[in-house]
Order: sequence, then structure tokens, then C-alpha cells
Amino acid sequence: MKPQHTIGSLLLARLQQLGLHHIFGIPGDYVLTLYKLLEESPIQHIGTTREDSAGFAADAYARIHGIGGTCVTYCVGGLNIVNAIACAYAERSPVVLLSGSPGLGEHITNPLLHHIVKDFSTQYEVFQHITVASVVLDDPLTAEREIDRALHALMRYKRPVYIEIPRDLVLAPVENVSAYVLPQAASHSEPDALKEAVAEVRGILAQAERPVILAGAEIYRFRLQDVLTQLVERMNVPIATTLLGKSVIREDHPLYVGVYGGLVGREELLQFVQEADCLVMLGTMLTDVEDIQAHPTMLAAERTIHATADAITIKHHRYDHVWFEDFVKALATTPLPVFASRPIPTWEQTAFTPPSSESPVTLKNLFGHLDKILDDKTLIIADVGESLFASADLHVHQSAEFLSPAYYTSMGFSIPAALGAGFADPSLRPIVLVGDGAFQMTGTELATCLHHGQAPIVLVLNNRGYSTEREILDGPFNDIHEWHYEKIGEVIV
Amino acid sequence: MKPQHTIGSLLLARLQQLGLHHIFGIPGDYVLTLYKLLEESPIQHIGTTREDSAGFAADAYARIHGIGGTCVTYCVGGLNIVNAIACAYAERSPVVLLSGSPGLGEHITNPLLHHIVKDFSTQYEVFQHITVASVVLDDPLTAEREIDRALHALMRYKRPVYIEIPRDLVLAPVENVSAYVLPQAASHSEPDALKEAVAEVRGILAQAERPVILAGAEIYRFRLQDVLTQLVERMNVPIATTLLGKSVIREDHPLYVGVYGGLVGREELLQFVQEADCLVMLGTMLTDVEDIQAHPTMLAAERTIHATADAITIKHHRYDHVWFEDFVKALATTPLPVFASRPIPTWEQTAFTPPSSESPVTLKNLFGHLDKILDDKTLIIADVGESLFASADLHVHQSAEFLSPAYYTSMGFSIPAALGAGFADPSLRPIVLVGDGAFQMTGTELATCLHHGQAPIVLVLNNRGYSTEREILDGPFNDIHEWHYEKIGEVIV
Repeated sequence: MKPQHTIGSLLLARLQQLGLHHIFGIPGDYVLTLYKLLEESPIQHIGTTREDSAGFAADAYARIHGIGGTCVTYCVGGLNIVNAIACAYAERSPVVLLSGSPGLGEHITNPLLHHIVKDFSTQYEVFQHITVASVVLDDPLTAEREIDRALHALMRYKRPVYIEIPRDLVLAPVENVSAYVLPQAASHSEPDALKEAVAEVRGILAQAERPVILAGAEIYRFRLQDVLTQLVERMNVPIATTLLGKSVIREDHPLYVGVYGGLVGREELLQFVQEADCLVMLGTMLTDVEDIQAHPTMLAAERTIHATADAITIKHHRYDHVWFEDFVKALATTPLPVFASRPIPTWEQTAFTPPSSESPVTLKNLFGHLDKILDDKTLIIADVGESLFASADLHVHQSAEFLSPAYYTSMGFSIPAALGAGFADPSLRPIVLVGDGAFQMTGTELATCLHHGQAPIVLVLNNRGYSTEREILDGPFNDIHEWHYEKIGEVIV
Repeated sequence: MKPQHTIGSLLLARLQQLGLHHIFGIPGDYVLTLYKLLEESPIQHIGTTREDSAGFAADAYARIHGIGGTCVTYCVGGLNIVNAIACAYAERSPVVLLSGSPGLGEHITNPLLHHIVKDFSTQYEVFQHITVASVVLDDPLTAEREIDRALHALMRYKRPVYIEIPRDLVLAPVENVSAYVLPQAASHSEPDALKEAVAEVRGILAQAERPVILAGAEIYRFRLQDVLTQLVERMNVPIATTLLGKSVIREDHPLYVGVYGGLVGREELLQFVQEADCLVMLGTMLTDVEDIQAHPTMLAAERTIHATADAITIKHHRYDHVWFEDFVKALATTPLPVFASRPIPTWEQTAFTPPSSESPVTLKNLFGHLDKILDDKTLIIADVGESLFASADLHVHQSAEFLSPAYYTSMGFSIPAALGAGFADPSLRPIVLVGDGAFQMTGTELATCLHHGQAPIVLVLNNRGYSTEREILDGPFNDIHEWHYEKIGEVIV
């Protein structure tokens, strides 16, 4: 006998199978039945003060845990989480967005239900633009297939998916549910294409003397940190990361040279990477924040390998049937050249000077102190702005200890992210670095952290305005009204 | 010599001509050039802590002032205001959303600019679903036409429009700018159709003995409050309003019978309206919150007139070429039957009992006290939930003294709305009625009110959870972590 399922219970069962233990969100009348099922399921609901906070929390949870989820009501909930889902899309974070919606029956009887914007499909259409799959579970006959299609896209692309359930279908029975097979990348690459691609890399490396690996955030997303370390050590190749990929390898690793990128990079590191005669970019998105200046040089030299979840590109051609995860794993296990050790711009040279107790409170001294107190259980979460740029040079101790929306750069990510991280890995202690502007956006979400007994450390870097913009074009519009940030605890405790 | 304009300056000039004096928003690098122009223009920029607050503030400003505006950066700004713009769409509030975007030149040179989600058109495509016009000012040759097209749609439908300017085109010169003619509804109706429609109304009324007018929010949006009062008094017809349309007529008017609607209506009022033998609905959206139960009855009786900005419907047929504004004005000035006075369920009968100083603090006593202290300069702003339902029976003193997202019912509207209202009409003193859930969403926007010397009165109705939902289906997910709301002032002052 196969277990009897409803659309709602099947959806929650699938999410559990993928490892989702917590879901963030705010209830509303269109999603109450699903909330009731959630309450009865092993998945724990974490209420937030706002929907966008729920989205950021789910994003951070997904970055650490491998999958995240949020559950909101129709339109007033869903449309309030658009930016957070867009951030997860842009930075490849596998977040499942569940939304309730008006019942199918209500479409006919009551066309002007509350919360509706233009018509019943408005919310679905909006999310089509910012997810890799959008489905409406409006038929028990197709619900299983649609759920699996969405979750498959989530795992394949590590990007958000949208799943809407009309409220009168949550409890609709689903017959003949199949045993669920987790989507695996390994079976998807074309074996000969993979072989050819790896052989080509081997050939290029064989002619190189000064290769460098540049690793990005997708290493995190596909949980390839250990595989990457294995690859680096086998070849004895120096490795830099992008800002978004900071700490995909232990930052005290002897082959690690630092964070590479125009806005935050050290001169000697830029030069070192640009002088490489072969650049292997793994899971890096080439953004203007990270400013991969070496890229054109390497392309000219025909010694560039660039692998991402979207495409595996070698020199000027592309392998369509090779998946990122397979490619990186194959590199780590196939015989490749081993390179002689050479002088590298050691990361340790950039160490901050720890301040004395008499030192004035400056950004530099603050980060010097921070750098000293980081340990294996410290998770740095940097919001956008000075917080992010200054954090690039902190020495975090192991992989997955640095979280930031470094590409999409949406202010207000950090505090909700601390909440999500606290559930994804309670053994980590978050240190949140956040500017005054970003703190004013979502800082009160700290209340939810406290409610659940979390104790993130929050440093508000109060520079009284949008300082990153001041440097571009200043005016009174960059000023921010000053709060007594230190008193926030009295309100939310 | 025509004045020399740029795309940016032309846009701001048009907005000034339409009466926009304040614009709410947060700068970002894609919109800084436009902000610089704003700073040099007579339009005052009001910085908020979050973009959605800017959207709600602009919405409230528009409801009072006739047009509102918000100016944000690309994606991290624009996608954070989706819900507020959706609210303005759903409830017909004429809000102009200005957004910066990457320069056209950058599309080619730098496809992975920060803040980008899927591609350069993602934000534009999202807003197409929730505005009546979306334009990208990407060509000086067509910019004027596109601006005017968008603003014309704004004035015609009283719904939000989206105007995006790539950052490298803000200062692009525009030649041969025309003198701007404000869009007027008056010239748009087909004269014979208007005449026929009004004659038909006259014929229906001539056979009626107990007509009732039911007025909604569109009376506000088209600024027809005085016209409506004139119509009511000339015909001597009792008038009810929907919740969203509360206070479109002075609530101490002798012909006013109260707020009509399923969730908040009094039994005697429901009965009175249902017993009408002709129902003239002017500017009412028929929503489930307002629950126009009489509608089917009236339709059956073939004595229903229903005029909105979308359509003028009489009995079962529709006039496509008659505009709402023209129709209401024509009714107010054309000879129509005058009805004998008859007993009506007077609104005063519903007066709250003012509590004594010994009365316990209950919702009823609180509203009794509030009802007593309202005066001609009090603006009631009700957030969603108990706050809204309880407010329905408050006696506000003149028109435009009640603001609430009564149909879209998005929590968190009220505090930002107080900010917007404070600029739209500084002579009004807002009293904000807000639940704990809604306050936690946007309550800290009070900081911006204080920054500008505003002094709204805020009542947090703390019922420790999402009470409206508790009544439908309760569970721990409806609980809200308690704040010390009374200490918020210490943080944000």
C-alpha cells in the first residue's frame, strides 16, 4: 500500500526528503491550511516580522544547509518577498517559495477577493521572472509531476522556485505517489563530453607553469568545498576566491592567496593572478563588483577554463552537456599535472594589526580586533557597503564561514541571514557587520533571533549615511537619520 | 525658444506640472544622477528607511494630494517596492514609480553588473504586471511621448505607473519639447453616450421610492467628494460608503447612514440597503472584504447603477465610452428626481459610549474615547486587522480623513502612510491605529516622521498575534514575539 497523500502533504514530504528542516514565513488566510499541515509535520516554522526577512533567512539557511524554504500568503506576502527571492536567484541560493492563493472555486464565485492585484495569475507571473521554475498546484493529477519538476530545477540550478497552492486544493488527495528519487547531477553529464573536457583541461595545464585557480560561490552551492581543496592540493596550485566565494577554501590554507576583485583586491594579488599563464575559474560569476580584470588577458592567451552551473567554457568554446558538479569532481579525481611550489603573495602578509586597548576606534582597528578573535565557530555575515569591503580581508577559519550578498548587494540581508544561519547550523556564532542604512531596513528582525534564543553579535558600522554612494555622488539624499542603535535591545527583548 | 531639456529634467518638470511636490525613496548608484536633478528641482526628496515604506508613503500622499511619487534604484530598490505598488494598483492610488537602471552602454560592456537578477529587462517585466503603464526612457527621441503616455494612464486610471531611466540617459538632451496639456477626463466621454446613460439613470430613479447611494474610494481618487455631496443633497438620497470609501462624505451629514459591508456592517444598515429599490454605486470596487451582499438583489430588480473607472454599468449593460468622472459630474448637474425624506438608520445611533476615567482599557472603550476626541483636523489611518474593523464605526469629521488599505489589506501600511500624509497635508494630525504584527513590519519608519518634525499619534493595538487569522484557524504560527513598543521612541529619536 502506498501512503495516501494530499497535495499539501506530498509537497511537505518531498521537502523533508530534500533535507528541509525549517521554513521561514508569515501566515495569512490564503495559506492557513498549509500552515496547519506544516505545524503537524517535522518541518519547524519560524515566524518573522516581515516576509522579506523570511526570504533572506531562507537564503542564508540554504547557503549553509543546501536548501531553504519560505511560506507566505498571497500577494501581500508573496509580493513582499520579491527582492529577497531575486537576491537568491542572482546569487544562486536554492530557496523554495511556497505561497497560498485563492481557491480555484473562488475564481468564479468571487473575482474581487482581498489581496488580489490585477488578476489571479499576477503573482505567478511576477515570480516567473525571478525563479527557475514556477508552478501552480491546481490539479491533483499533475501535482506530483509539477512538484518534482520544480524541485529538480532547484537542485539543478541552485536557484529559487515558486510553488503556489490554491487554498481549496491543499487537502486534495493525490493517488499513486511514486517513491521519490533525489535528483543527482552525476547521472546527467554526457560521459564522452565530460571526458573530452577534462582531457582538454589536462592539455592546457600541461603547457602552463603558473596556473591559478579562482573559485566562486557555486562551489558552496554544490557543496564542493572538500572536492575543491582536494583538487588544489593534488595539483599544488595557488587559489584565490571571489568576494562572493570568500572562504570556499580554508583561509589558512598554504595555497590560498586571498580575495580577488577590483573593489577589494590587494595590488600584489591582482598582479599575481594577472601574471598566471592559465586561469581555472570554478563557479565564479563574473560581476562588476568582483571585477575579474584578468579574464580578457587569459582569454587572449587561450588558457582560460571557466566552469559554472550555466556552462563549462574552455578557451572560446562551450560544453553544453557537462554539468558543473560532475566537472569539478572529475577534475579532482583525474590525473592532472602537479606543479612545483613557487612564491605566492601569502594571505598572512595582509594580516590586520591587532589594536591595543589604547587604540582609537577606527574601522581598521575594529577589523584588526575582529580578525584576532575569529575562531572555527565564527560565522561572518557582512551586509552591503563598507561592511562588505572591509570584511574581504578578514581571515575566516574554515569554509562556509562568510555570508554576504556580494553580487546582488541588497541592503538589509545580514540580520535576517543571521536568523537563518542560526537554524542551519546552531554551532556557529554569527558576527554581523552591518551599516546604519542596512540596519534600519531589517535590524528589528533581531527580535526573532532573541525569541529563539540565538545570540548573534551585531556590529552597526554607523557612518551616518549611504557612504558607498557618497563616494560616487554626494548630496543630502545620502544622509540617514540617526538612531540610538544601542537601545534596540530594550525594545525587542 | 523652447526651453532645453534633458530626459531627467523633462520628467521632473512634467511631475511638477501634475502637482507633485514631494517624492519618497532611497538613492542607489543607478539612480544618483536623477537624485542630483531632484535635489536641484523644487520637488523635495524624503528619504525613508526602506523602499516599501517609500511606496506606502507615496500611496497615502497620492490618496490625499492627487498624485504621489517614489524614486528608487534598480532591482534592490525597485523589487523591494513591488508589494506597495501592487497595493496602490489594487486600491487605485496614482503613484509614479521612478527607477534608475544600468546605462544602455553598460548592457554591452558589462553584462554582469551588480543588482541584476536575470537580465536587464527583469524589473520592467515585473512591473508590467502591477502598473497601468510601464516605460523605459531609453531614447531621447521618444522620451517625451513615453513620459506623457505613462502620466496620461496614471491620471486616467488613478493607478501606478513605472518609469525607468537608464543612468546614462538621464542627462541626454530632448529637443522640441511641447507645452504640456494636463490630461482631462472631461473631453473623453462620448457626449451622446453620456447623455443616454444619464437619461437612463433618471428613468430608473423616477420609478424608485427608496433609492440608496453607495459610494467608494474612487470618489476620493477623482476628487469628487464635493460633487458627490452636491448629488446626494439635490436628490435627498441616503448614502452609505464602503470601508475603503469611508469618509468620502462628511460623516455628520444628515443623509449619511454609515459604512456598509459584510465584515463591518451593522445589521440595520445592511437591511436598509438591501431594502432599497434602486442602488446607485459610485466608485465602489466589489470586494469580499466589503461584501456587497445587496448587489445580486439589486441586479435582479434591474435597479442597479454601478459606475467605476473601469466601466459604467446600468442593469446588465455597459457604457464603454463614458468616463467615471464625467458620469458623476453629469449626475450632479443634470435634473434628477428629488425624494421625500424618510426615516434612515442614523449613523449617530451607533455612537460609541465615551468611557469614564475608571473604565477598563478595552478595544471598545478605547474607540469610544477616540471617537470623542476626533476633530476636523484628525486623520484616522487604520492598518489591517482589528484596527481596520474597529475603525469603521469611528465618526470622522470631514472627507479624506480616513486612510486604510481596506481591500488589498497589506499589513504595515499605516506608519509609512502617516509619513506621506504629513507631507500631503501638514494641517492634518494623523492618529495611526496599528496591530502588533503590522507595527513590527514598518513601525520604525516613525523615525522618518520624527526627522521631519511630524507628530503622528500611534496606537499599537497589541493582541499578541495575528488575531484575524486566529479566528479562522489558530496555531502557534499566529503568535508574535512581544516588543516593548513603548520604548521605540528611545531608539529612533
